[in-house]
Amino acid sequence: MTLFQNVTLIDEMGNVTPRTDLLVQGGRIAQIGAAIPCPPGAERIDCTGKFLTPGLVVLHTHTPMNIFRGIAEDVNIDDWFNRELWPFESKMTEQDIYWGAKLACAEMAQNGVTAFADHYFGCQHIARAAGELGLRCDLAYTIFGFGGDPEPELQKAEELLAAYAGNEMVHLRIGPHSPYICSPQVLRRLVEVARQHGCGIHLHVSETAEQVKESYQKFGKSPFAVVAEAGGFTVPCIVAHALYIQKEDLPLLAGDTFVAACPKTYLKLGMGEGQLWQHWQSLQLGIGTDGAASSNTIDPLEQVRLFALLGKWADQAEQFTLPQMWQLLFAGHRALPFGAGRLAVGAPADLALWDLDTPATAPVYDPLAAILYSASAANITHTMVAGRFVKKEGRLQVDVTAITKQVADCAAAITRRGRGESKVYF
Amino acid sequence: MTLFQNVTLIDEMGNVTPRTDLLVQGGRIAQIGAAIPCPPGAERIDCTGKFLTPGLVVLHTHTPMNIFRGIAEDVNIDDWFNRELWPFESKMTEQDIYWGAKLACAEMAQNGVTAFADHYFGCQHIARAAGELGLRCDLAYTIFGFGGDPEPELQKAEELLAAYAGNEMVHLRIGPHSPYICSPQVLRRLVEVARQHGCGIHLHVSETAEQVKESYQKFGKSPFAVVAEAGGFTVPCIVAHALYIQKEDLPLLAGDTFVAACPKTYLKLGMGEGQLWQHWQSLQLGIGTDGAASSNTIDPLEQVRLFALLGKWADQAEQFTLPQMWQLLFAGHRALPFGAGRLAVGAPADLALWDLDTPATAPVYDPLAAILYSASAANITHTMVAGRFVKKEGRLQVDVTAITKQVADCAAAITRRGRGESKVYF
Repeated sequence: MTLFQNVTLIDEMGNVTPRTDLLVQGGRIAQIGAAIPCPPGAERIDCTGKFLTPGLVVLHTHTPMNIFRGIAEDVNIDDWFNRELWPFESKMTEQDIYWGAKLACAEMAQNGVTAFADHYFGCQHIARAAGELGLRCDLAYTIFGFGGDPEPELQKAEELLAAYAGNEMVHLRIGPHSPYICSPQVLRRLVEVARQHGCGIHLHVSETAEQVKESYQKFGKSPFAVVAEAGGFTVPCIVAHALYIQKEDLPLLAGDTFVAACPKTYLKLGMGEGQLWQHWQSLQLGIGTDGAASSNTIDPLEQVRLFALLGKWADQAEQFTLPQMWQLLFAGHRALPFGAGRLAVGAPADLALWDLDTPATAPVYDPLAAILYSASAANITHTMVAGRFVKKEGRLQVDVTAITKQVADCAAAITRRGRGESKVYF
Repeated sequence: MTLFQNVTLIDEMGNVTPRTDLLVQGGRIAQIGAAIPCPPGAERIDCTGKFLTPGLVVLHTHTPMNIFRGIAEDVNIDDWFNRELWPFESKMTEQDIYWGAKLACAEMAQNGVTAFADHYFGCQHIARAAGELGLRCDLAYTIFGFGGDPEPELQKAEELLAAYAGNEMVHLRIGPHSPYICSPQVLRRLVEVARQHGCGIHLHVSETAEQVKESYQKFGKSPFAVVAEAGGFTVPCIVAHALYIQKEDLPLLAGDTFVAACPKTYLKLGMGEGQLWQHWQSLQLGIGTDGAASSNTIDPLEQVRLFALLGKWADQAEQFTLPQMWQLLFAGHRALPFGAGRLAVGAPADLALWDLDTPATAPVYDPLAAILYSASAANITHTMVAGRFVKKEGRLQVDVTAITKQVADCAAAITRRGRGESKVYF
């Protein structure tokens, strides 16, 4: 039990309630109101001058790729995939997956993230890392397949789906890589399995202009249309990127489809302006980070800031407003099955506590502006997931040095091994 | 005296020297090399695994405007000036100037900044604030004037120039606001005075497309040509922004002219793409932040990251390379008269110490990538200016709570007073 006293609440819509109390009990928000009596045994935290928000969320990442952060710089997206990352990934070990994910979870806990949607191989290692850090995760069991037989991987995916069924901290879903790495037949089969399990899918769609062009050449339709035809939007669906979503794609998307924008990757890999900023209000948009191998950080606050700044750049300074960008920061929670991302009695106690009384953020005319445009992880003093602190008084509740030591060893081994053969062509 | 032991040096060019020592004595770098004996009385700092760089620099800001951080959000640049900031500034007090500048200096010390170039009124209050925080400053005594008589303000400027002559921590120069707020006659007069004192100027040029258009309408030439005709590039000159610099402007710039790019403001106020990214390699470019009232942070690392990302965005991922962006981060020092920004024996001991062994930055394949794309102020454990620590073991060496308390009081008073009459029209 934890009682946050004298705290200013900012809910997921941006509504501000000054100087109130919030009681956490049994992993959930038990009570909100002024002068809540402190129950016996409850930890009492004086939050005078501080701000409590829902925990942050990352709607698309590849946590194990934290192990490759900074390994491939100043390259375009084609070289990044084919000359750098896939060749390194082809020699990746289970240790790399586990320590990369653990590093990413540590980074996210620092950044106030309480839940993330991952898209990668080796989900069991990621689930273990997230569990050790105390974060909730939605893991897409990633499957490549262009004409190949997906059944052996599907069987493993179904075993993991069974293993984590009903788990409140770990959700499994199916992760077709994309309509350019999976054939329409494979896509259709993966969607069927996702429907049978009621678990949903998570895949990349329309990241680059080239992909859209090739899809029209190959299939006579857009990548979104290919996914729609495979039934992809008839199950709960997380779409990563959609940078080149076309106007004609919009009617294809169903109510349970969420799009994860990861602007730092688009910038860093020179992917161009795309159409996402034209259509974002027609989508259920959330904030992803992509993997740290392209975006170098797993920080949704940095990403939403970039999203807003890029939106405003060309004569739209009055748009991409504080309330809109605030809601976007938390919107990804609605795509996940945890019911978190809300400051309401009965909701999971997944929270971030902010100290804005710092040289980087003072003075505070509007806390939404202070957080969206000035704050960083350093302003988040506490991160709580399911009523447990994963960061407290500015410190992670795990041995950080042990993590970075192991990660350095993995990085040294990766450098020694060098690149292997890239296994994927498209 | 301070001995940094077992540290990896990264100089202003991006050259990396692993595991060496650096001795600071008399405010300067006294010795660099392996196994320097620790002189009696010297403070010894074990920097195993850490990185030492020159201190960072901000080539254009308005420190007192930190007091207005977050007061005017979601507005275009015209409303930002005329509906919001100038009306608030018209009611600004000397207390606001001092506490705003002090807050900005605290923020900069956190961010590893050791020197900054300011453009504002009330330079004596800014010099006092910078001195109390321990930072070096280059202050442009700002003068408006379109047809008005600049002599009374010039006289005050000359008094301050005399007062700080020969000061190693404070440099004064003349700060004509811009060719759109100063007439050609006033500009010419201000340049003359700057030449007499050998102090240089600092002014805004070609921030917006509109300014360039109006300059052609009014004077038949670009803003850069107007400044050139007034002799502005025949004295040491800091040009803020130059977002809409034209190709024809480039030959006008002389060897002592430096341009400060502040991309966050351009994005946030919807100022458009401009031409700066086309011409940046023809310029002596440095990184500014603009005032926190538009950019919300005084963080050159965030600004250089934005500069690089925006440069890469449209199909230029292989350009804006790590060494180039690293050099850009420190280039502003060359525009300032302190001789800092170098890791060389005899150079001022203006330094930043980085811990990259953190969940946000590990693993480190290349420290330039780790700093440029992943790090934040939280990775800077020590900031040293002239041999004195202004930040040490992650903490500022001043009473931060006292600063934010006074700043909150100023902000409350600003909110109570509200907007006044804007005094400037253009």
